[in-house]
Amino acid sequence: MTKSRLEAFSDGVIAIIITIMVLELKVPHEASWHGLVPLAPVFLRYLFSFIFLGIYWSNHHHLLQAVKHVDGRVLWANLHLLFWLSLVPFVTGWMGENKFAALPVALYGVVLLFASIAYFILAKVLVSLHGRDSVIGIALGRDFKGKVSSAIYLTAIPLAFVRPWIACAMYVLVTLMWLVPDRRIEKTIVE
Amino acid sequence: MTKSRLEAFSDGVIAIIITIMVLELKVPHEASWHGLVPLAPVFLRYLFSFIFLGIYWSNHHHLLQAVKHVDGRVLWANLHLLFWLSLVPFVTGWMGENKFAALPVALYGVVLLFASIAYFILAKVLVSLHGRDSVIGIALGRDFKGKVSSAIYLTAIPLAFVRPWIACAMYVLVTLMWLVPDRRIEKTIVE
Amino acid sequence: MTKSRLEAFSDGVIAIIITIMVLELKVPHEASWHGLVPLAPVFLRYLFSFIFLGIYWSNHHHLLQAVKHVDGRVLWANLHLLFWLSLVPFVTGWMGENKFAALPVALYGVVLLFASIAYFILAKVLVSLHGRDSVIGIALGRDFKGKVSSAIYLTAIPLAFVRPWIACAMYVLVTLMWLVPDRRIEKTIVE
Amino acid sequence: MTKSRLEAFSDGVIAIIITIMVLELKVPHEASWHGLVPLAPVFLRYLFSFIFLGIYWSNHHHLLQAVKHVDGRVLWANLHLLFWLSLVPFVTGWMGENKFAALPVALYGVVLLFASIAYFILAKVLVSLHGRDSVIGIALGRDFKGKVSSAIYLTAIPLAFVRPWIACAMYVLVTLMWLVPDRRIEKTIVE
Repeated sequence: MTKSRLEAFSDGVIAIIITIMVLELKVPHEASWHGLVPLAPVFLRYLFSFIFLGIYWSNHHHLLQAVKHVDGRVLWANLHLLFWLSLVPFVTGWMGENKFAALPVALYGVVLLFASIAYFILAKVLVSLHGRDSVIGIALGRDFKGKVSSAIYLTAIPLAFVRPWIACAMYVLVTLMWLVPDRRIEKTIVE
Repeated sequence: MTKSRLEAFSDGVIAIIITIMVLELKVPHEASWHGLVPLAPVFLRYLFSFIFLGIYWSNHHHLLQAVKHVDGRVLWANLHLLFWLSLVPFVTGWMGENKFAALPVALYGVVLLFASIAYFILAKVLVSLHGRDSVIGIALGRDFKGKVSSAIYLTAIPLAFVRPWIACAMYVLVTLMWLVPDRRIEKTIVE
Repeated sequence: MTKSRLEAFSDGVIAIIITIMVLELKVPHEASWHGLVPLAPVFLRYLFSFIFLGIYWSNHHHLLQAVKHVDGRVLWANLHLLFWLSLVPFVTGWMGENKFAALPVALYGVVLLFASIAYFILAKVLVSLHGRDSVIGIALGRDFKGKVSSAIYLTAIPLAFVRPWIACAMYVLVTLMWLVPDRRIEKTIVE
Repeated sequence: MTKSRLEAFSDGVIAIIITIMVLELKVPHEASWHGLVPLAPVFLRYLFSFIFLGIYWSNHHHLLQAVKHVDGRVLWANLHLLFWLSLVPFVTGWMGENKFAALPVALYGVVLLFASIAYFILAKVLVSLHGRDSVIGIALGRDFKGKVSSAIYLTAIPLAFVRPWIACAMYVLVTLMWLVPDRRIEKTIVE
């Protein structure tokens, strides 16, 4: 099976998730700064979701570059990833609404953790389909970055109940780590 | 006519249907477990619709793999399928909202029945276009799985008025039957 | 310029317009037939919009089949068509909400008229780009069907203020006329 | 990396943004002209957003025509552009809601300014990737149009607080300037 429909469907779902939140920016009735103030947290929430989902889209794009074909398992590993990504606007919103209280920060971490695990599974399934000696097998190697991300999220979730800001700092750290997309794949393809 | 636009349009429609329900997960104002409780049924409903539509997308993807070209009849058979699929979030929601009462469970079965019939018609039209000796003709054969699904749904709908849980168990049975996508097609293409 | 992006963008927009209305099917709280009754007009409205937009998508698909390349004018003729199509759910809804009163029936006709004119313009621009001797030029010829449609709509709109049901019958007539997609194009391509 | 997914994702996001506003055209209960009057500003707002986003889509389409491949930087420059475009319906709405008061007109200009800068950055990144002697390098040249647009927006924003209509006139001017898509690219490709 070719990968084109998997890409097209993922693009469609991520395009919807990434733009859904802009619907919550309700036009205020007042033409003053005062009217904009209550929208500030909604805007920030939209901005953060957008960046986070942009990172996943960009990495998904890189990952699929090295892929030659897909099978039924890949379709489901990908749907699994899309499911967790679709919850990102909700948990970002809950966290923002409650000024970074413990439980929302922890739940945010849980969704991020499962998204990172789903991405990890997708990568594993793709490597097992193409073989360890394929472009994608070599490029991902032992997938250090993927494992470290999941480990950081796992540590951050309980810490959210002690000091929410420490958990948030750890989320930001993982985000920065992935902002640079997977150069490993670009490099391996070129070689 | 090539099949690429049919696939792209179906991907677009299914991507929208599959993500629409996440919009109903309204951010709660409380930062406690208490705030999340009323969202649990909405979340479960989203999860089940997502899985159900994922199954259809995955099978649709497999079905179209074996297709070489399409015509006007295929376009309409496909639109017919998409119409029934677009009603899945609504009937899933009504069933969940009413704790699996008889009528919603039966209506859920009706939509599932029509979706399965629409899928069956689409497969028939594709086979008649490509011939019984084509890849798709051989792969689908007498389409045992399709006929059994429709038969189970047809039995489950009246049973919903006697014991809703029996109907639900039958829906789950069909779902499991289709979770494994059509290996017949993958096999026939390879041979 | 290739036509692939024009097709992909149109597919995306039509996929959204065609599924948007399903969002208005709000899950009722009652698990009885009583709870479904107020949804009947919304459902019918959704069904009619779906069929109408399905017809346009199917014909758009046929039209673009015969196209080799596009230019800036084609992009805008296409956007113009999409604009009028995006208003179809709204006017269908207003007409249904008011039990086919004169003004909503007339406005429905106006949107249908402009959509048919926009489709006509798109076809003209495509023919002028490819030449009268191209596949698309021969297939469309003097575009009898397009001109008749616009003429019927133009007659139906004033009649809506006299007898709304006559206007509705005329809309149904045009719809039936287009339900069979443009065999002229399929034929000309084969020859 | 090929550009096809970048195009598909952008098409998806722009298709959603361009059609989102039609959801705000709520069906009125009255079947009279009176019922339509409050919808007039919503309709105009939708019309203007549609045209504005259509211009960007059309130019984006032209720009990407001349592109051979993309990299991680291009993905992010493109996401950056999509982010600002997604805010267009909101600022158009706020401006319309408040009858072109100073602050909304200025904010509208700010979003337009950032969108034009994002488009400029995307073009720059694409030129630097393909080289000054590539089709896209020659076609864009010193990008006079891009620089002038940003300069006009920059002048219009403070003027919005003096005379909002002057700022609006300047926005219309830039819009007209871009309504004709980039013939430079079409020409350079042909040569």
